Amino acid sequence: MESGVNAKITPERSLTLLSSKEVNRLKDKSEGGLYGLFRRCSLAVLNCGNESDDSKAILAAHAQFDIKVVQQPRGIKLEVSNAPVSAFVDDVMIKGIKEHLFAVLRDIVYANTVLKKSTNFNLERSEDITDFIFHILRNAEILIPGRTPDIVVCWGGHSISRFEYDYTKEVGHQLGLRDLNVCTGCGPGAMKGPMKGAAIAHAKQRIISGRYIGITEPGIIAAESPNPIVNELTIMPDIEKRLEAFVRVGHGIIVFPGGAGTAEEILYILGVLLHPANKDMPFPLIFTGSKRNESYFQMIDEFIAKTLGDAARQRYKIIIDEPRRVAEEIKAGIEEVRKYRRYHSDAYYFNWLLHIDPIFQKPFKPTHNNMRNLQLHRNQEDYLLASNLRCAFSGIVAGNVKAEGILAVEQNGPFEIRGEQEIIAPLEELLNAFVRENRMKLPGEKYVPSYRIVD
Amino acid sequence: MESGVNAKITPERSLTLLSSKEVNRLKDKSEGGLYGLFRRCSLAVLNCGNESDDSKAILAAHAQFDIKVVQQPRGIKLEVSNAPVSAFVDDVMIKGIKEHLFAVLRDIVYANTVLKKSTNFNLERSEDITDFIFHILRNAEILIPGRTPDIVVCWGGHSISRFEYDYTKEVGHQLGLRDLNVCTGCGPGAMKGPMKGAAIAHAKQRIISGRYIGITEPGIIAAESPNPIVNELTIMPDIEKRLEAFVRVGHGIIVFPGGAGTAEEILYILGVLLHPANKDMPFPLIFTGSKRNESYFQMIDEFIAKTLGDAARQRYKIIIDEPRRVAEEIKAGIEEVRKYRRYHSDAYYFNWLLHIDPIFQKPFKPTHNNMRNLQLHRNQEDYLLASNLRCAFSGIVAGNVKAEGILAVEQNGPFEIRGEQEIIAPLEELLNAFVRENRMKLPGEKYVPSYRIVD
Amino acid sequence: MESGVNAKITPERSLTLLSSKEVNRLKDKSEGGLYGLFRRCSLAVLNCGNESDDSKAILAAHAQFDIKVVQQPRGIKLEVSNAPVSAFVDDVMIKGIKEHLFAVLRDIVYANTVLKKSTNFNLERSEDITDFIFHILRNAEILIPGRTPDIVVCWGGHSISRFEYDYTKEVGHQLGLRDLNVCTGCGPGAMKGPMKGAAIAHAKQRIISGRYIGITEPGIIAAESPNPIVNELTIMPDIEKRLEAFVRVGHGIIVFPGGAGTAEEILYILGVLLHPANKDMPFPLIFTGSKRNESYFQMIDEFIAKTLGDAARQRYKIIIDEPRRVAEEIKAGIEEVRKYRRYHSDAYYFNWLLHIDPIFQKPFKPTHNNMRNLQLHRNQEDYLLASNLRCAFSGIVAGNVKAEGILAVEQNGPFEIRGEQEIIAPLEELLNAFVRENRMKLPGEKYVPSYRIVD
Amino acid sequence: MESGVNAKITPERSLTLLSSKEVNRLKDKSEGGLYGLFRRCSLAVLNCGNESDDSKAILAAHAQFDIKVVQQPRGIKLEVSNAPVSAFVDDVMIKGIKEHLFAVLRDIVYANTVLKKSTNFNLERSEDITDFIFHILRNAEILIPGRTPDIVVCWGGHSISRFEYDYTKEVGHQLGLRDLNVCTGCGPGAMKGPMKGAAIAHAKQRIISGRYIGITEPGIIAAESPNPIVNELTIMPDIEKRLEAFVRVGHGIIVFPGGAGTAEEILYILGVLLHPANKDMPFPLIFTGSKRNESYFQMIDEFIAKTLGDAARQRYKIIIDEPRRVAEEIKAGIEEVRKYRRYHSDAYYFNWLLHIDPIFQKPFKPTHNNMRNLQLHRNQEDYLLASNLRCAFSGIVAGNVKAEGILAVEQNGPFEIRGEQEIIAPLEELLNAFVRENRMKLPGEKYVPSYRIVD
Repeated sequence: MESGVNAKITPERSLTLLSSKEVNRLKDKSEGGLYGLFRRCSLAVLNCGNESDDSKAILAAHAQFDIKVVQQPRGIKLEVSNAPVSAFVDDVMIKGIKEHLFAVLRDIVYANTVLKKSTNFNLERSEDITDFIFHILRNAEILIPGRTPDIVVCWGGHSISRFEYDYTKEVGHQLGLRDLNVCTGCGPGAMKGPMKGAAIAHAKQRIISGRYIGITEPGIIAAESPNPIVNELTIMPDIEKRLEAFVRVGHGIIVFPGGAGTAEEILYILGVLLHPANKDMPFPLIFTGSKRNESYFQMIDEFIAKTLGDAARQRYKIIIDEPRRVAEEIKAGIEEVRKYRRYHSDAYYFNWLLHIDPIFQKPFKPTHNNMRNLQLHRNQEDYLLASNLRCAFSGIVAGNVKAEGILAVEQNGPFEIRGEQEIIAPLEELLNAFVRENRMKLPGEKYVPSYRIVD
Repeated sequence: MESGVNAKITPERSLTLLSSKEVNRLKDKSEGGLYGLFRRCSLAVLNCGNESDDSKAILAAHAQFDIKVVQQPRGIKLEVSNAPVSAFVDDVMIKGIKEHLFAVLRDIVYANTVLKKSTNFNLERSEDITDFIFHILRNAEILIPGRTPDIVVCWGGHSISRFEYDYTKEVGHQLGLRDLNVCTGCGPGAMKGPMKGAAIAHAKQRIISGRYIGITEPGIIAAESPNPIVNELTIMPDIEKRLEAFVRVGHGIIVFPGGAGTAEEILYILGVLLHPANKDMPFPLIFTGSKRNESYFQMIDEFIAKTLGDAARQRYKIIIDEPRRVAEEIKAGIEEVRKYRRYHSDAYYFNWLLHIDPIFQKPFKPTHNNMRNLQLHRNQEDYLLASNLRCAFSGIVAGNVKAEGILAVEQNGPFEIRGEQEIIAPLEELLNAFVRENRMKLPGEKYVPSYRIVD
Repeated sequence: MESGVNAKITPERSLTLLSSKEVNRLKDKSEGGLYGLFRRCSLAVLNCGNESDDSKAILAAHAQFDIKVVQQPRGIKLEVSNAPVSAFVDDVMIKGIKEHLFAVLRDIVYANTVLKKSTNFNLERSEDITDFIFHILRNAEILIPGRTPDIVVCWGGHSISRFEYDYTKEVGHQLGLRDLNVCTGCGPGAMKGPMKGAAIAHAKQRIISGRYIGITEPGIIAAESPNPIVNELTIMPDIEKRLEAFVRVGHGIIVFPGGAGTAEEILYILGVLLHPANKDMPFPLIFTGSKRNESYFQMIDEFIAKTLGDAARQRYKIIIDEPRRVAEEIKAGIEEVRKYRRYHSDAYYFNWLLHIDPIFQKPFKPTHNNMRNLQLHRNQEDYLLASNLRCAFSGIVAGNVKAEGILAVEQNGPFEIRGEQEIIAPLEELLNAFVRENRMKLPGEKYVPSYRIVD
Repeated sequence: MESGVNAKITPERSLTLLSSKEVNRLKDKSEGGLYGLFRRCSLAVLNCGNESDDSKAILAAHAQFDIKVVQQPRGIKLEVSNAPVSAFVDDVMIKGIKEHLFAVLRDIVYANTVLKKSTNFNLERSEDITDFIFHILRNAEILIPGRTPDIVVCWGGHSISRFEYDYTKEVGHQLGLRDLNVCTGCGPGAMKGPMKGAAIAHAKQRIISGRYIGITEPGIIAAESPNPIVNELTIMPDIEKRLEAFVRVGHGIIVFPGGAGTAEEILYILGVLLHPANKDMPFPLIFTGSKRNESYFQMIDEFIAKTLGDAARQRYKIIIDEPRRVAEEIKAGIEEVRKYRRYHSDAYYFNWLLHIDPIFQKPFKPTHNNMRNLQLHRNQEDYLLASNLRCAFSGIVAGNVKAEGILAVEQNGPFEIRGEQEIIAPLEELLNAFVRENRMKLPGEKYVPSYRIVD
């Protein structure tokens, strides 16, 4: 392993001012302190470009890494030691990565000091959770008033083939040519391609305010480091708040091929949209890939048909091998969103009107017990089934790439998933396909499933 | 009286995003709601340019005024009805005033929702008060990292003569030519002149980022409307936090002739600086006026000599009729401040190291009782006497121009001030001079003292 | 006299790149070289703020002044020696003045190298003169496409009273509040006041792109140094091209009280507008002053009535003591201009459609002979009489403040002016009033007339 | 063929103001008029993205294309009819292409009106040619003072393989990460790849002022349309001035694999550098390609060895398959350039000190006669042989892709090239390799050589 870099980092833009108290919280290595969280996320950001998605291994490989906050007359500085070399060019940190470090700092301090300690929010209440998310996004300057809707969320796998990656770039290019912006979950693959394509298209259109938004959370960030093109990064406290941020900030969603994480996202948005309260709300949702992905999306479509049924299928379109049409359709769909928000006087920058059932907001902890007890049967409302399926995939993702999940599986064997045969059979089939097509993990080593389907 | 204007106001810059909850708080006319406070401060801002400093009368004259917050797709809008016409040119609101409205909104929401309800702050503790002030100033973007010290606080009367006003403009011009910025308490007179002078000088120096900072509080804002040149306005919760904001944000202070309010400010800063903990801290402080103000400053100097003694007199310089020298001296003084902060690694944008005794942070409520019980004798530490004298002046200001104070005096007669003869005699002399020279109130009506010296 | 300053000057903005040839032309002290012209204009710019309008005396007082152009890796530098101290603050040149130096450089090089030597222009032809002016203004970036008409030319005396000056400031303030920009001939008095007022108003309206345009020429610049607020300066080759620049760039004209120079300007614009080809063209023209200037404008009005008659009087409005109405009227007038240009597809930034008779374009050389032979009688077209009267005033201005003119008068006595009694009598009366009211020269010394009315 | 688009185009940035005369010149379809040239270059710009390099065929395919200049109140507009659809997205012209149209307009007007008609330039004299080029580049704002050297000229083929293209992208990426900018001859292949790579790297480094400079000329532009990433485009009058612009503007040169055009460029720069006057001038020059290009550069190296000898070989480095090292070496080389310029007080933005022999400045007209009479033997100074070889390649390029050249070859058969065997043999070998490797023309049709080696 290359030995790391030591460096002092000053922010480029004037985002970061900390009070003495806040600095102390960041230095605090005790249980209640923020040092551990800050160090972990910082390392993930700096590790960008390295080819592993095993959070646990990454943390272990950089055990010597340290980061410190220093008060300076002109503002805050960071001092890193033993940082991954890939974050530097000729010993100078890449500016995009520098910005990410300060974004991490900003979000961790904001969410965990005044906000967390304010009686303003009761995080058991649905409205308060949404309000909490709004506060974090506003503070991160992700919410920009005055703009018309233009944010396309792109979901899809971190581990995809070259031809799949090239297709995501081409779709991004078509979006960028139409002055649309891209929001993803950070990381490589389908989360990076659309941003690259859009960046080149924005250059052609002389758009210097192009937005490449990354929304992540402490559990996944190590496995899916934000690529430096991301120019607006935010760290939500957990996966459920991250998913809510996607759907409240984005004006439309494009789904590229992917594995368990992508399936989780698909089930989340379908579950939310299936709620009767959202029946009339326009929400453009397109599944797309190249010619060679046709069968993949057929399989996804069938899985949805068999589990959630036709109501769910009404909510998306599948477009194969037509990047330009994808961009045109999403643009047209976003125009519907704009009209709807205007009619209802809802904000363009935050989808207040979308109803998200508390079941989708409550953090799901992927323990063996919780996984085993997921209710996977048709004898419930569609959106509840969607929610339970999304938890199943969430647990599998944790077992694949998140430090905590990997550890749990190492200690207690794969998660066990049970359920009614009509649900569990298509699920197994889908998971098998993901494994077969290398969608579970980045290539390099053999995939050992983090789950087991039991009867 | 001219009938008012109805208008819809959109913000120029993207500062204002409110959550649904925050909007509701602003609409809430009940005791705990923010409507009353927001309306009162907004009216003050809109009333700019009108020549009265009687807060109670201003509020009464605009009883029909109303302001509403409206959620819109592109952000927040304000709707005003029966607004003072002086805020408009050809029926369009002056942009500077528009910005002030949104600054009021920002600070009231921020200080009174999450912040106030956070257990992060115990407002009985000195450090927490300072931290609270830091949070408000940071949120208001008054604290800008990366700049070298350049903020000159200008204090002085709102009711001054033409020649005094012209002198403040000339000093401001000399400051501006040297790339220094101006911070005042808003309002007319010595708070406006330096900004005007600096603005012209900044134009000559092609400085487009010139800062004209106004720091005010809900009690005084109606009597001292921010003039529209102010391009950074912040509303601190009370007079003590406002004073603390001045001395933590400013890098030097210039005092022009003024009345009771100016005397309050002088006693505050001298009291703070007299504390042993601040003995070695450089803090440039200059009293200045034109040739015709020479005797005025002699009188102030003597009052300080008689009450606080020579240690206090070491803390300021008196410069008569030399605007250029004032600017040169304050610039040199600020350079000392810069070196000191650098040496101690203290922030340029916030004077963390200045010790402010809790006695100066505790809000003083100018009731008849509190005024009567002020300890005005030499048998105490100098800084305590300074604090008590500052409270005496604070009460007189309240009785002169603040709505609450005016009412109290109307109901119960003038405040009574007692004390040791060695203190009370020079105090009376000074107050008499203020009255004689029309420094207590804007010209227009006869001044009826809000205080009475008793034995 | 204070000894001068030596300094190296780098441009702030990237305007100035010179070829080796151009640098050599600027260094060339021979007849055909540009050194002399460049030095003279640079000195004028640096001399800003000094209180003299005697070009000859100014040049003599600074005989030691020198300026050199130096090629540097990063661009062009200027080296000045023995420069007037008033151009510096704490030994650093005021940035506005620095910009003016480079504007001088730019215009002198551009007009006198490629342009002058191009067979593209035949400066005997009216269209080519206009085209030549267009090229200089375009190169100076005075012509800005994409903006709606908003340039108000302000004319008036350089030597005016305090109350007159304050009135010009107030008018400028009202213009600035309405997002209008100011263009003057540079210099003090009525050429500085409106800019100051507009600058403050622009600050209130948060307009950072406010335009303070100065149009001058080598003969007058020493007597009327551009004040540093001017942020767009251009040096036209002679007085006639300067006048044409005013009327093609401005969208309306306001005339304040003044002396011979102001009279020259009034006669120029009236002469141009009286031409039949301009009959239907809207061109707002307002004469204005404070209450105490009422009789002054009555006198001007009568002079015009007696010489050019009622057709000329239809072309302007006189507004006394109503700064706000002046701004409203000029704004309304400019709206007519906008409509007219749009209807005729004429440029907003350059009045191509205005017909300027060659008689107004041909440079008038104020020799004793030319002055004596001016045709001042009613037996000619109105616009020709206007032209001849304008030349008379032009000569008087030269004799008052221009180096060449002062010298001619010193050597050969005052210029003699002859003509028909009906013209010559009101002219004499007007000139006497100018002398009486100190409008001919800045105060300080007794005015010795540069002219003599003869029969 | 798709039918074309009709559209009205307004410039984004305020570059374009034309006088009435200039508009008329652009409309003038007669011999001396500029219409033909303007139309031809505009079509080339609009044709971007279409896959042909046959100028003649492109012009023929768009015979219906027309472009008109229209004076508008807010500035100049362009009206195109039957324009290539590829220039538009959803019927709106891509902004980068829009800018290119106005760049064409700017350069054609500037070079062909005032400049061409000015006796300032004698285009037979070497210094005047250089001065003329300086004027065009300055007017196009390609020369930016105040920056340190950072422009890397990238040369290489328009017709290259995918792996070669990917390699140019990766080199561009490494340049961009180091804050270097890219200048090419426009067009596809090696002229586009480095810009794409740099654009992504600039995004990562948050550089919004990245420069992607394209320098072209009327003869080649149709075959090598500028790609829309180019954000600074300039049209030089002919190929020799274009080559001079490259070497005076660039601070270092990287050569990727290419065909005859690339060979012309290599011989030009080597010929210039071989002149004794340039012996001590640092000028970084790197030939680079991927592993699979190793033999290609061996061949080039041998050709140079055999023709120009070892002195020429000292002037470049060959680096195989190390994009990062290429960037590091060119950066180090540019630092030497910076020091040299600083030491000699030469401009960073224009290499005045480079001596270019008139033989390299004189336009070479590729007629059959001129080609046949090229002196290709060793009995002359190296730099003269380099010049003659460069003309040979120049003629071949013309015969391959330029409209005029194609026509000449169609009418009179291939150009004949003669010379001494020691020169002509390696030349033939090289050309054969270019043909074999498809470097002469874009793929799609069989290449018919435009030349013939004769004895």
